[in-house]
Amino acid sequence: MTPSEDCVVTDRGGIVENRHRVHVAVVDAKGRLLYTLGDPTRMTLARSAAKPAQALAILETNGFERYGFDDADLALMCASHSSEERHIARTRAMLSKIKAEEADLRCGGHSSLSETVNRAWIKQDYTPTAVCSNCSGKHVGMIAGARAIGAGAEDYHLPDHPMQVIVKRTVAELCDLDPQDVEWGIDGCNLPTPAFPLDRLARLYAKLASAADGGEWREGSSRRGPALARIFQAMTRHPDMVAGEGRYCTVLMGAFGGAIIGKLGADASYAIGVRASDDTRRLGADGALGISVKIEDGNVEILYAVVTEILEQLGIGSPERRKQLAEFHHPKRVNTMGVTTGGVSFPFKLRGYTPDGENSSPAALTR
Amino acid sequence: MTPSEDCVVTDRGGIVENRHRVHVAVVDAKGRLLYTLGDPTRMTLARSAAKPAQALAILETNGFERYGFDDADLALMCASHSSEERHIARTRAMLSKIKAEEADLRCGGHSSLSETVNRAWIKQDYTPTAVCSNCSGKHVGMIAGARAIGAGAEDYHLPDHPMQVIVKRTVAELCDLDPQDVEWGIDGCNLPTPAFPLDRLARLYAKLASAADGGEWREGSSRRGPALARIFQAMTRHPDMVAGEGRYCTVLMGAFGGAIIGKLGADASYAIGVRASDDTRRLGADGALGISVKIEDGNVEILYAVVTEILEQLGIGSPERRKQLAEFHHPKRVNTMGVTTGGVSFPFKLRGYTPDGENSSPAALTR
Repeated sequence: MTPSEDCVVTDRGGIVENRHRVHVAVVDAKGRLLYTLGDPTRMTLARSAAKPAQALAILETNGFERYGFDDADLALMCASHSSEERHIARTRAMLSKIKAEEADLRCGGHSSLSETVNRAWIKQDYTPTAVCSNCSGKHVGMIAGARAIGAGAEDYHLPDHPMQVIVKRTVAELCDLDPQDVEWGIDGCNLPTPAFPLDRLARLYAKLASAADGGEWREGSSRRGPALARIFQAMTRHPDMVAGEGRYCTVLMGAFGGAIIGKLGADASYAIGVRASDDTRRLGADGALGISVKIEDGNVEILYAVVTEILEQLGIGSPERRKQLAEFHHPKRVNTMGVTTGGVSFPFKLRGYTPDGENSSPAALTR
Repeated sequence: MTPSEDCVVTDRGGIVENRHRVHVAVVDAKGRLLYTLGDPTRMTLARSAAKPAQALAILETNGFERYGFDDADLALMCASHSSEERHIARTRAMLSKIKAEEADLRCGGHSSLSETVNRAWIKQDYTPTAVCSNCSGKHVGMIAGARAIGAGAEDYHLPDHPMQVIVKRTVAELCDLDPQDVEWGIDGCNLPTPAFPLDRLARLYAKLASAADGGEWREGSSRRGPALARIFQAMTRHPDMVAGEGRYCTVLMGAFGGAIIGKLGADASYAIGVRASDDTRRLGADGALGISVKIEDGNVEILYAVVTEILEQLGIGSPERRKQLAEFHHPKRVNTMGVTTGGVSFPFKLRGYTPDGENSSPAALTR
């Protein structure tokens, strides 16, 4: 099997139904590529998986302290939340802290990422508004940041706004890229969203985990290490703020008890940061580990299955922890009469990466 | 570009977001392969695109006449309907014709394929039951067929039931395959569903269109030609029964006024039959034309865009007719603030097929 053939396969009665191409990069905190699938340098729109980097830009203004945000607020800034009542209430509370109103948000409402919430909304004839955006926390943070740097907050979402210029620089620095090597599109919530090689997303998350380990930071300001550590801890301490009831990010971080962070990006990107441990050492990492995944066709159900399979192949965490992700790992294929019609399989194995070409060290993998 | 790279691309601000691999076969009524993309012989689960073949098996029992089914009933047997009131009412009327009850159906309820219907159901706290299945017409037809051949209707859905044995033979014959070369899985509605090479699905639809043209039929019973023509005409005369308000199959057949049939299969297969015309002659077809499409990852929104692009590249029908499919051809990528974030593009061109290898006759294509 060649890298371009790394696929997840779904079947019906043993007949191939669909195939989904998979890209994976596993790096350590120094950015060394350890394991790959597909194209680990695929230019990838990180979407909401970039939120911790955007949150760092906000943290590095003094807006965070000035307005008295706490760690749960920070987790919501990194979130693609389910628009549950707790998420909307916190968004409103954050708006109060900065004395802003919903009309100041430059995002719009949309259907919830939770079917339970959607059903409740439909029953109430409720039309979701800006505070319901799954990105609402990030938007309040951007207003706070814009004000803190003395820029008008009216157009905080525009690519040339001073706050977004800071975000662009911050993202590039965290990815160890020149700013011109990061490309930008417009996200669903109307903020700029970056694209960069997939392994740089893994690197970003390895840095977050490394910071939580107290790792050193040569680059950027001296505040960057503690700020990254704070983001890591905010997400692991408030996993319910990062996604919502039953959602993958929330279940994953709940299951791993502070050892890892994980974040979804729309159109099926995902990133994980793993704190240094016996597992990361066994895998050859110098310190913490970062994992990034992109499903070529944007299928999120398949993404969750793949991320869980990668954790399994790498042997990260105990089987007991990983078992809490079982329903995402092997999503049920049951028809309207309760009959199992097929399944999802993973006919690939992470390849150890060596700079000069082919495979290495599969021995570090658990199967 | 090689066949394995035939993809639809979605972008965000010009940056590639997702890629979806595409397979297409265009054949004439004699089964000659004329144009291709990807792997035109990909073993493909036809799912509901096989319904006209299943309906033929029912027509060829005497159950159809015995129970007084009409052409709208036949269209519903070929449908993946939206569970609108008209579809459910017709299902109940068909059950009355055979003096059966909902409890005799071996399918289950599920969310509607129409969001409008789903919203109404949620507001009414309505739990969909068997008559709401998008395959309800096919199931009533199978009970009628089972009774007509003197078999018990209790287990009409099981692979070894005499009615399903007839379906298997009929499908293989229409595909010009030995029965053992057709594979079978279990569908969402709990009936067996066939898999065969993609070009055979195109052939099946070319035969339906050819029968509507009054084409001769050497194979099978002498009733087969008229029966296939009746299926073609039932679908084109009752496109609202085949899918529902605003759905692709309904809009497509409504737009083309009896010249073509089109049918969706779940997990993104599609088949079209085109009656003989100046268009089909220009394309090199001997008589009618069949088109089959499969999106490798099962994405239905992308499927509709591709099918429309294929009709465009082949130049089938007038631009005015095709324009009615514009919203499917170029689905809007608009964010929660109404800003266009990207689009869908088709960086492929149908290849003319010659048995000994490479390209031919792109001149017949309109662009």
